[in-house]
Amino acid sequence: MYREKIKILDCSIRDGGLINNHDFDHRFVRAVFKAVSEAGIDYMEIGYKNSKRLFSPENYGLWKFCDDEDILKVTEGIESKTKISVMVDVDRVNIEDVKPKDQSPVDMIRVACYVKDVDKAISLANHFADKGYETTVNLMAISKILETDLNECFQQLEKECKAEVIYLVDSNGALYQETTEYLVKKAKSMIKSKELGIHAHNNQQLAFGNTIEGIIHGVNYLDCTIFGLGRAAGNCPTELLLGFLKNPKFDIRPVLDVISNEFIPLREKIEWGYIIPYAITGILDEHPRAAMALRNSNKKENYREFYESLIGSDEVE
Amino acid sequence: MYREKIKILDCSIRDGGLINNHDFDHRFVRAVFKAVSEAGIDYMEIGYKNSKRLFSPENYGLWKFCDDEDILKVTEGIESKTKISVMVDVDRVNIEDVKPKDQSPVDMIRVACYVKDVDKAISLANHFADKGYETTVNLMAISKILETDLNECFQQLEKECKAEVIYLVDSNGALYQETTEYLVKKAKSMIKSKELGIHAHNNQQLAFGNTIEGIIHGVNYLDCTIFGLGRAAGNCPTELLLGFLKNPKFDIRPVLDVISNEFIPLREKIEWGYIIPYAITGILDEHPRAAMALRNSNKKENYREFYESLIGSDEVE
Repeated sequence: MYREKIKILDCSIRDGGLINNHDFDHRFVRAVFKAVSEAGIDYMEIGYKNSKRLFSPENYGLWKFCDDEDILKVTEGIESKTKISVMVDVDRVNIEDVKPKDQSPVDMIRVACYVKDVDKAISLANHFADKGYETTVNLMAISKILETDLNECFQQLEKECKAEVIYLVDSNGALYQETTEYLVKKAKSMIKSKELGIHAHNNQQLAFGNTIEGIIHGVNYLDCTIFGLGRAAGNCPTELLLGFLKNPKFDIRPVLDVISNEFIPLREKIEWGYIIPYAITGILDEHPRAAMALRNSNKKENYREFYESLIGSDEVE
Repeated sequence: MYREKIKILDCSIRDGGLINNHDFDHRFVRAVFKAVSEAGIDYMEIGYKNSKRLFSPENYGLWKFCDDEDILKVTEGIESKTKISVMVDVDRVNIEDVKPKDQSPVDMIRVACYVKDVDKAISLANHFADKGYETTVNLMAISKILETDLNECFQQLEKECKAEVIYLVDSNGALYQETTEYLVKKAKSMIKSKELGIHAHNNQQLAFGNTIEGIIHGVNYLDCTIFGLGRAAGNCPTELLLGFLKNPKFDIRPVLDVISNEFIPLREKIEWGYIIPYAITGILDEHPRAAMALRNSNKKENYREFYESLIGSDEVE
C-alpha cells in the first residue's frame, strides 16, 4: 500500500546543470518538464536562483538564474500538476530578485547550506516563507558532521525555521544503509514538526538504496533525477523510484521516452554516473571535486594513483 | 569492527562469461586471478564445468568447461591464498569429468539450480562433497518462489544436503532491501547448520545495497564481480565491497589497477551495467533475456515499446 505523504522532486535540470554550467536550452528543459508532468511527479527543480552581480550571465546558462520568463517559456502550454522549485545557496542569492509568490511561476524555494551556515539558511528560508513560498533547508555533506554540531543544527531548525521540509543531502555519496538509518532516525527524533527529505548521490551505487532506506524510516520528500543525471556520479534515478513507488498517480512511461529521446544523446556529450574515481571519493567520504578534476585530465583512468593521492603517502598526525 | 566469517567470492570470469560465451583468453583470466589474489579475496569462480557431450568446445570458450590444465595455466606461479571455485548447472555436468579433490586445482564446486530442481542439486552437491570439495547450492530466481515451495526447499537443504553454504540468487535483479531482509531472515530461521550466501544482480542499482542488507542480517558469503562485470546489468562490484568491508586483509588497489588496465578496455567490446531495458526487467521481476535480445536488435533504445511489450497490451485473466 502506498504512502500518500511521499512527494518526489525531480532535480535533473538543477543538479545536471552542475555538469554543464546550467546550459540546457529551452527545448530540452521543456521536454523534461513535459515528461515529469505526465509522469505525475510532484515537483521539478529547474535550477538555481543566483545573483547576476556575483555570476555573469555571459559565463553561465539560463538555469543558473531561473528568470521567470525562462521558466514560463518551458512550462506554458503544458498541462501539469507539477510544482516548480528553484534552489538558492547561502551568500549567492540576491533576495530582491525573488518576487512575492503570487507574482512568480515558482512554487518552492530550497535553501542549500552546510551545517555551519544553518543560521544563514534559516534566515533565507524564513524570508522566502514570508513571501509565500513553500520552503526547504537542504543540509549538505551530512556524512561528515560532528554529532554536537548536528544536534545544535537540528534543534535550531525545529525551533527557528519556517521551512516545511529539512533535507539530508549526501553530497559525498558516502552513506550506507546503516548510516542513512542513523541520521534519519536522529533527525526524526529532533525535528518533529516538519517533514524530512533525502537527496542521495550515486558514487557507490547506493543513491536508490539509501533513498529506499529513507522511505523505510519515514522520509517523505525524495529527490531524484532522470537516468541519474547529476554532478559526478549523479543521483537516485527517477525511473527506478517510479518503478518502486506504488502510488497509482505515477507513470514511468513518459520518463522512459525522455531517456530514449533526450538523455541517451545527452550522455554522448557530458559524463556522469558510476565511474571509479567518484566511487573512490565516495568510499573515502570526500567531495567529488578532485575526481572531477581527474576526469578532465589525461590521467582519467589512473585509479590507483588517484586513490593513493587521496589517502596520502606522507606520515600524518 | 569486521566480521571474520565473511568470505567474498569474485565471479567476474564466471558471470562475465555469460556475455561472451566464456571466451576470455588465458592472459585476461590470469590478470584477474593476480588482482583477486593480491586483493585478499577468498574465492575466485573461474567458470562452469559443463559436459563436452552437451556443449561443443568449438562453440564456446575455455571457461565453459574449466579443464584442469587451463586453470593451472592462469594460476601457476602467482602467490595466492585465493581458492578456486567452479559452477555446475543441474543436468549439464558430467560428474565423471570431476576428479576427486586431491587430484584437482579446484577447491569449491557451486551447484546452481531453480528451486524446483533442488533434489537434483542436493544429489550433485552431496556427490561433490563426497569427492572432497567445498560445496554450495545456489538457488536462482529467488524473488519469484511460492512460499510453500520455498519452505520445502529450505527444509530439504537443511536436512539432506552436505553443502556448507546456501546462496540466495536474485537472478532478476528484482529484490529491494525489505524483500532481501525477508528472504534472508526466513532462510536463516530454517537453515541453521549452514552459512548463507547472496548473489545480487544490478538491474535496479541495488546489487551492492542488497548485499549490504544481507550482511546486516547475517549472510557471510558474498558474491561480487570486478567493475560489476556480468550478464545484463551485472553484479555487486568487487571494488565497492572491498571499500565497505573492514577486514584489514583486503586491499582495493590491485582491483583498481585491473579495472584501469583490463576492464575499461573490455567494456569497449562487450556491454553490461545499468541499462534501461535491464532496469525494466528488474522492476517487473522478469529474467533479463528479453532485454538482452532487445539490446542485440535495432530497437535497443525503444524503452517504452519494450516496457509495453512486457506488461502486455491484451486483456489477461
